[in-house]
Amino acid sequence: MRIGVLTALYQDLPFEEALDKAATAGVTAVEIGSGGYPGSQHCPVDDLLESQTKRDEYMEAIASRGLMLSALSCHNNPIHPDPEVAKLADDTIRKSVRLAAQLGVPVVNGFSGLPAGTPGDRMPNWVTCPWPPHFTEMLDYQWNQVAIPYWRETAQFIADQGVRMAFEMHPGMLVYNVDTMLRMREAAGPTIGCNFDPSHLFWNGVDPVAAIRKLGEAIYHVHGKDVYLDPLNISVNGCNDHKPYSEIARRSWTFRTIGYGHGLKVWKDIMSAFRLIGYDYVVSIEHEDALMSSDEGLSKAVATLKEATIFEQPGEMFWA
Amino acid sequence: MRIGVLTALYQDLPFEEALDKAATAGVTAVEIGSGGYPGSQHCPVDDLLESQTKRDEYMEAIASRGLMLSALSCHNNPIHPDPEVAKLADDTIRKSVRLAAQLGVPVVNGFSGLPAGTPGDRMPNWVTCPWPPHFTEMLDYQWNQVAIPYWRETAQFIADQGVRMAFEMHPGMLVYNVDTMLRMREAAGPTIGCNFDPSHLFWNGVDPVAAIRKLGEAIYHVHGKDVYLDPLNISVNGCNDHKPYSEIARRSWTFRTIGYGHGLKVWKDIMSAFRLIGYDYVVSIEHEDALMSSDEGLSKAVATLKEATIFEQPGEMFWA
Amino acid sequence: MRIGVLTALYQDLPFEEALDKAATAGVTAVEIGSGGYPGSQHCPVDDLLESQTKRDEYMEAIASRGLMLSALSCHNNPIHPDPEVAKLADDTIRKSVRLAAQLGVPVVNGFSGLPAGTPGDRMPNWVTCPWPPHFTEMLDYQWNQVAIPYWRETAQFIADQGVRMAFEMHPGMLVYNVDTMLRMREAAGPTIGCNFDPSHLFWNGVDPVAAIRKLGEAIYHVHGKDVYLDPLNISVNGCNDHKPYSEIARRSWTFRTIGYGHGLKVWKDIMSAFRLIGYDYVVSIEHEDALMSSDEGLSKAVATLKEATIFEQPGEMFWA
Amino acid sequence: MRIGVLTALYQDLPFEEALDKAATAGVTAVEIGSGGYPGSQHCPVDDLLESQTKRDEYMEAIASRGLMLSALSCHNNPIHPDPEVAKLADDTIRKSVRLAAQLGVPVVNGFSGLPAGTPGDRMPNWVTCPWPPHFTEMLDYQWNQVAIPYWRETAQFIADQGVRMAFEMHPGMLVYNVDTMLRMREAAGPTIGCNFDPSHLFWNGVDPVAAIRKLGEAIYHVHGKDVYLDPLNISVNGCNDHKPYSEIARRSWTFRTIGYGHGLKVWKDIMSAFRLIGYDYVVSIEHEDALMSSDEGLSKAVATLKEATIFEQPGEMFWA
Amino acid sequence: MRIGVLTALYQDLPFEEALDKAATAGVTAVEIGSGGYPGSQHCPVDDLLESQTKRDEYMEAIASRGLMLSALSCHNNPIHPDPEVAKLADDTIRKSVRLAAQLGVPVVNGFSGLPAGTPGDRMPNWVTCPWPPHFTEMLDYQWNQVAIPYWRETAQFIADQGVRMAFEMHPGMLVYNVDTMLRMREAAGPTIGCNFDPSHLFWNGVDPVAAIRKLGEAIYHVHGKDVYLDPLNISVNGCNDHKPYSEIARRSWTFRTIGYGHGLKVWKDIMSAFRLIGYDYVVSIEHEDALMSSDEGLSKAVATLKEATIFEQPGEMFWA
Amino acid sequence: MRIGVLTALYQDLPFEEALDKAATAGVTAVEIGSGGYPGSQHCPVDDLLESQTKRDEYMEAIASRGLMLSALSCHNNPIHPDPEVAKLADDTIRKSVRLAAQLGVPVVNGFSGLPAGTPGDRMPNWVTCPWPPHFTEMLDYQWNQVAIPYWRETAQFIADQGVRMAFEMHPGMLVYNVDTMLRMREAAGPTIGCNFDPSHLFWNGVDPVAAIRKLGEAIYHVHGKDVYLDPLNISVNGCNDHKPYSEIARRSWTFRTIGYGHGLKVWKDIMSAFRLIGYDYVVSIEHEDALMSSDEGLSKAVATLKEATIFEQPGEMFWA
Repeated sequence: MRIGVLTALYQDLPFEEALDKAATAGVTAVEIGSGGYPGSQHCPVDDLLESQTKRDEYMEAIASRGLMLSALSCHNNPIHPDPEVAKLADDTIRKSVRLAAQLGVPVVNGFSGLPAGTPGDRMPNWVTCPWPPHFTEMLDYQWNQVAIPYWRETAQFIADQGVRMAFEMHPGMLVYNVDTMLRMREAAGPTIGCNFDPSHLFWNGVDPVAAIRKLGEAIYHVHGKDVYLDPLNISVNGCNDHKPYSEIARRSWTFRTIGYGHGLKVWKDIMSAFRLIGYDYVVSIEHEDALMSSDEGLSKAVATLKEATIFEQPGEMFWA
Repeated sequence: MRIGVLTALYQDLPFEEALDKAATAGVTAVEIGSGGYPGSQHCPVDDLLESQTKRDEYMEAIASRGLMLSALSCHNNPIHPDPEVAKLADDTIRKSVRLAAQLGVPVVNGFSGLPAGTPGDRMPNWVTCPWPPHFTEMLDYQWNQVAIPYWRETAQFIADQGVRMAFEMHPGMLVYNVDTMLRMREAAGPTIGCNFDPSHLFWNGVDPVAAIRKLGEAIYHVHGKDVYLDPLNISVNGCNDHKPYSEIARRSWTFRTIGYGHGLKVWKDIMSAFRLIGYDYVVSIEHEDALMSSDEGLSKAVATLKEATIFEQPGEMFWA
Repeated sequence: MRIGVLTALYQDLPFEEALDKAATAGVTAVEIGSGGYPGSQHCPVDDLLESQTKRDEYMEAIASRGLMLSALSCHNNPIHPDPEVAKLADDTIRKSVRLAAQLGVPVVNGFSGLPAGTPGDRMPNWVTCPWPPHFTEMLDYQWNQVAIPYWRETAQFIADQGVRMAFEMHPGMLVYNVDTMLRMREAAGPTIGCNFDPSHLFWNGVDPVAAIRKLGEAIYHVHGKDVYLDPLNISVNGCNDHKPYSEIARRSWTFRTIGYGHGLKVWKDIMSAFRLIGYDYVVSIEHEDALMSSDEGLSKAVATLKEATIFEQPGEMFWA
Repeated sequence: MRIGVLTALYQDLPFEEALDKAATAGVTAVEIGSGGYPGSQHCPVDDLLESQTKRDEYMEAIASRGLMLSALSCHNNPIHPDPEVAKLADDTIRKSVRLAAQLGVPVVNGFSGLPAGTPGDRMPNWVTCPWPPHFTEMLDYQWNQVAIPYWRETAQFIADQGVRMAFEMHPGMLVYNVDTMLRMREAAGPTIGCNFDPSHLFWNGVDPVAAIRKLGEAIYHVHGKDVYLDPLNISVNGCNDHKPYSEIARRSWTFRTIGYGHGLKVWKDIMSAFRLIGYDYVVSIEHEDALMSSDEGLSKAVATLKEATIFEQPGEMFWA
Repeated sequence: MRIGVLTALYQDLPFEEALDKAATAGVTAVEIGSGGYPGSQHCPVDDLLESQTKRDEYMEAIASRGLMLSALSCHNNPIHPDPEVAKLADDTIRKSVRLAAQLGVPVVNGFSGLPAGTPGDRMPNWVTCPWPPHFTEMLDYQWNQVAIPYWRETAQFIADQGVRMAFEMHPGMLVYNVDTMLRMREAAGPTIGCNFDPSHLFWNGVDPVAAIRKLGEAIYHVHGKDVYLDPLNISVNGCNDHKPYSEIARRSWTFRTIGYGHGLKVWKDIMSAFRLIGYDYVVSIEHEDALMSSDEGLSKAVATLKEATIFEQPGEMFWA
Repeated sequence: MRIGVLTALYQDLPFEEALDKAATAGVTAVEIGSGGYPGSQHCPVDDLLESQTKRDEYMEAIASRGLMLSALSCHNNPIHPDPEVAKLADDTIRKSVRLAAQLGVPVVNGFSGLPAGTPGDRMPNWVTCPWPPHFTEMLDYQWNQVAIPYWRETAQFIADQGVRMAFEMHPGMLVYNVDTMLRMREAAGPTIGCNFDPSHLFWNGVDPVAAIRKLGEAIYHVHGKDVYLDPLNISVNGCNDHKPYSEIARRSWTFRTIGYGHGLKVWKDIMSAFRLIGYDYVVSIEHEDALMSSDEGLSKAVATLKEATIFEQPGEMFWA
């Protein structure tokens, strides 16, 4: 297993400075935004697509620092009801996939996206309850009319490039938990897997170990991010919270650096579960801790993950 | 405190037979649907609005069985984006309010409703997360452009009738937890309060006692319904579950008869919290237990509530 | 679902008096020992096998009190290393099965039995750990050389009689948990199922609801018995306790009347799980509470089970 | 075991009416105040001491209602620094003891009392921490100069009457937990035991089962009272709370009717622990629930205790 | 945030050696006793008050080692019933305040003190329960006759010096929890705040995060000390324990080095709560671990706190 | 306290290389197999017994690396029903004891062993339940006929050599928990104590702190090994699991590196309990983590233990 970092936390720094920061922090992999919400400040996608030389230089910048490129990330919404938004997202995904293929990067991270609730509506509509009945009706439209057709076709394109797509199960997206992940994977095939980020699962009451063991080989990439569940606020308002991320003292949950949402043992259990199902690629730290600087957040996340991660292959069970 | 029942569970029986069932089950209050999702099988609203004689007969049928009428219930969506749906809901609410006033019933139960996410969209859009940013934008539209104006005006109408409206904090509605409840109440005034139903709160992680103590005098009516949190399914999929209510074995939570979701002590704590904040009206049982018949569900709910409820006024603290 | 009782608690009373006791206690089914550990004080097996008249009288004695006969029970060890013990047990099982068939009783309860650890040994050898390696070797012998051959053949005999055999997963027996139960069932076919008794599972750390959902249709009969886990003693000595049942104050666990080991909510969850998997036959109370008399133990068990059990069939989900 | 009641809750009723209330509520024992904090409204101590006839009538009034007199109770402070207070308390205790002897009542309930912190001080001084050092110094004075000498002598008097004294381990008294109870018993001998009231222990974090098993034969009488631990207030202010009992919403704990502080299973565990150590006398309900009337509180306490209590003697372990 | 240390643990070393120890241990602040229970071995108060030169040298000794002086500490009892004790304490506080002002130290730590229970009594009397009624009477005297008058006047003196006083909420002192802290602060004004030491709160059942969020800006200084809650002893005797600190195996709680009473995650939550309310000054380690040497205790506390503490200012929420 | 390691994890390396590994890993003690299950790859017992020179060289190899030899370990079964197996084991134990004496090593680790269930049986028979009655009968044979006589005699031999024997309480052995440990110690005297290994206790539900405090001075050596309790599998199958150690994903528990079964705080509590009872010798890491290499497992165990262990002697309680 390697510990990596999504370089978006250093998006204000030039590419190579960001890589220096990453290397200094002690990671051995980077995940780089190629558009969408993560931005593409560190990945000039069009330039790279056009030039083998630039690609070589790009990868050399990474490799020379003892890093590898674990994934391109272009979280966005290719099934957004606004055709422009959707088209841009789709373009970004396809370019990211082509670039990943050219760079030898096996996986592109993103979202499933979220359609509107019915044809003609302009806003994505996240359904988290089955009743009143219009919610169940919307799900039928969203899955069968929009998402499955899109991803079946797109998965084919991705597979043709020799790459795989990893959906981050995320609130506000059609694929937001294990059930919806496996449903999409069943519909669109094994080109679609997941980018497992426990921070979006904990606050729903998910036990990451149970989720990992259920997902098994469907896990293609992992995000290292934590979330704090505020017991005072949850006890009054519950975990479904649409207050802005900045209102930390009033929110029910807040993203935190690894170890500040859940203790070291929880993370050891997660890392052991990865080993058990055979996931042995990268845990890529995503810094989104509003109470910490990027440097401190990364440094603390790396320290905790280094304690929790199992790096070497196991030996013989001489005691069994 | 009185124990009552929402008569919808006997909607297939004629009104007086349903009342007999209720009285036999041991409750001393009924809550009756006056339209919307609870239906109005037991409340011919138009007829009653037109005739004092019929109203007298209606109330006498209730009173003669040792029952009182705790509330009319017309849960629907008066801010639905479909104008016809919204108009029908609004008419139902206004008629219910007028009828409640004429019958001397102090409270009408319902929902806040849920608008679309943006003007022109046709589907209600329940926002439970603040990001991606369109979710936060939708909230602004839903609250400030649609819901607050509607309820400010409607609250005035309700207040003019000398009645109060109790929103059930419910998934899929704009008002779904304590924060949103209190926000609406602050915007529309104390004519708007809540119909406290723990079954919609438990699965979000809410502690009903903490919620009751925060809501205090904003509680106008109470539903007695429980919910089972399936630990096996939640550990994998989390609590936000849009699978149909009928898929119990796969769902994360399921409505249950009181005592089958949470133990007697939890319900005693809830009843004690009501006493502490001064709520001393009715706990109205809502049977929605897919594993039990209506008769058995009601009977078990009454038995558990009778154990949990504090009926008499406290005496002197001679020991203090 | 019916609540029943294993009449062994009244083994010192004549058959009909025991039935009177059962009926008075409020159960509607009896389970009767036909030999082995439960004894056969209430079931003259040979007499009944020989005479249709006696069988008619026997069943009439039961039916006339509003009772049904849920199962014959002959817990013993047909694969005991002592051939005499084994032969007697096998005879008892076969007679019980034949009698059950003749009486129209669908299920016979018993144990899987437990072989010695190796050919020639004289003592049954219960293996609960895989190491040192002789334990794993013993398992191979016990399952493949002894138990599976015996039960494959016996299951055929049982199936031929139109009856099914329900193993109580029990400490000291080869089949003692869900894994071993399902292994035997896979080997010997669906004639073999289980008599689910939570009292033997709780102290191992089993969650009965999880076990029930895993076993599903493999559950043929249910015992209603509870077990108290002594936290003071377990914290020092752990749950594997071979001290005599009578040394309650020093033991880690002790059988108790339903509700004295685990609270009402636990039992409601268990009963709901039975409903969910479609088990709707009998919960047969087994009194083995050393702190209570038989009468009081039965009376308390019936009272708690009546609160917990779902008797009627569910209705329509009019609210879904 | 019998369920009884301390009649102080009906102190405003005449003696016989209070007994009627008790009998109607379903208890079979009464505990009656003979002075001190419980008052003596139902026990004209001096009159009874003087007249065998009156004593016979008194006991007949009790017995004729199917009740027994479990204890006289005169909780007070015979080691109060104010000599008048102390003298009055001592007189009350001695009279209570003499009366108990004459009535054939085996136990008198009371407090250890609490001295001042140093000679000359006028206020009782309850020490609950060892530092700053004056607290430890006070303890030496309180135990060795005041309490032990007093109770050694008084215990002799009590023993001479053939009666035993049961201290309620109570906040604000020198004997307030198991350690201090056993220390006093060791100093003053087995005439001194305890009146076990879980309501004063729970809020300190005591597990009553562990305490009962430690106390064993030192338990002479039992009070049935519960206490609610307010998690919202404790989480901020801790369990040591000197706010008046009436400020329930702000307090950390509040006395409650049995079952409203802790669930039925907790009470079953307590009752089972009594059986295990051989205590088989009376659980005497003490109503001090500020949220309930005396009638409702007593009725609910009796109902819960009847479920929890083991009344009959156990039978043979035929299954062992 | 800085990590500091109260130098009392090195009271047997000369001042500069103690500073060396502190600096070597990795802290960047010291808190120094200026009398009372912490002693003044490292702070020649009178000398320093008299000489600007000495003060300069003193502060230079600190600063030259990369340390700052976070607070002077003079925990004592200025409202002790013994006038001499009280006078000495008052003098010490006033000198400490004056010296703090001269040294530019913004806060002086101490206790609220504790009066006797009534005029004329000679022993401080800590009230932790409201009944019997003399306890409530004592509180009135202690607060209104003694403590509030004293601290109102003293707060004025402190404010005049431009310094603030931080009370450690401590067992055996009038101010011992959040409620009493805020009551005193309301009475004496914002010159009085608190020195938040979780070790005195945990054992009462306080959740430090809830307490911190309630106290908010009333927190002026923080002690880093932990406490072990002995589950075996608490389960029998409860948390109120007056046995000497040295009887660890028999006590209910014992002060421990940070991380030995509560795990790292608890401390991360505490540090995050400080950030949330805006406390960003010093966490000053107080070594009082009877199972560890001063060096090892300090070293371990520093290591754990360095993991838990957030040192840098947070950045932009680029992800919101 | 010292941290050590059982060198069996490097059994494929020559003795001195294994020592180098140990020293590099940061431990200061080694425990070395002298036969039986741990093997004797690093301890040529016969050679050493014969030559003082070799013994000097052997100990010098250890000491020169800053290590000490904490114990010889020869876990085996000297009361195995196979006389050859038993004889070999007994020889190994006696040689190990003699060698320990010659090397100045105070303790030899091993097992109690496990007899057959009855004379003539060939397989060891581990009894973990008292019923059916043959289990209780076997215990009588195993303890009184076999184990106690053997160990009484052997303990005499061991004592004569000036050494002590430490039994690892282990599943599959007669001595497997505190009760059986203390029973043997009572029978065979204080030459027999225990090698406390929490990994064999946790999965039975033992709280190591409670066990340590009960064992007290009976602890002669300690193993540092952890165990993961798989909640998913235990909830279905319970903790008694005889599946091979290699089937981790299906097993109920699996040995793990320290910190991967239980968190740091648990280990700090354990280490503090050792200090409290006065155990201050060695915690010897036993690597048996199937998910980790020996190097990584040892490195992680050392790191966690260094955090948890208290190395120095405590100082004065200057604060008490």
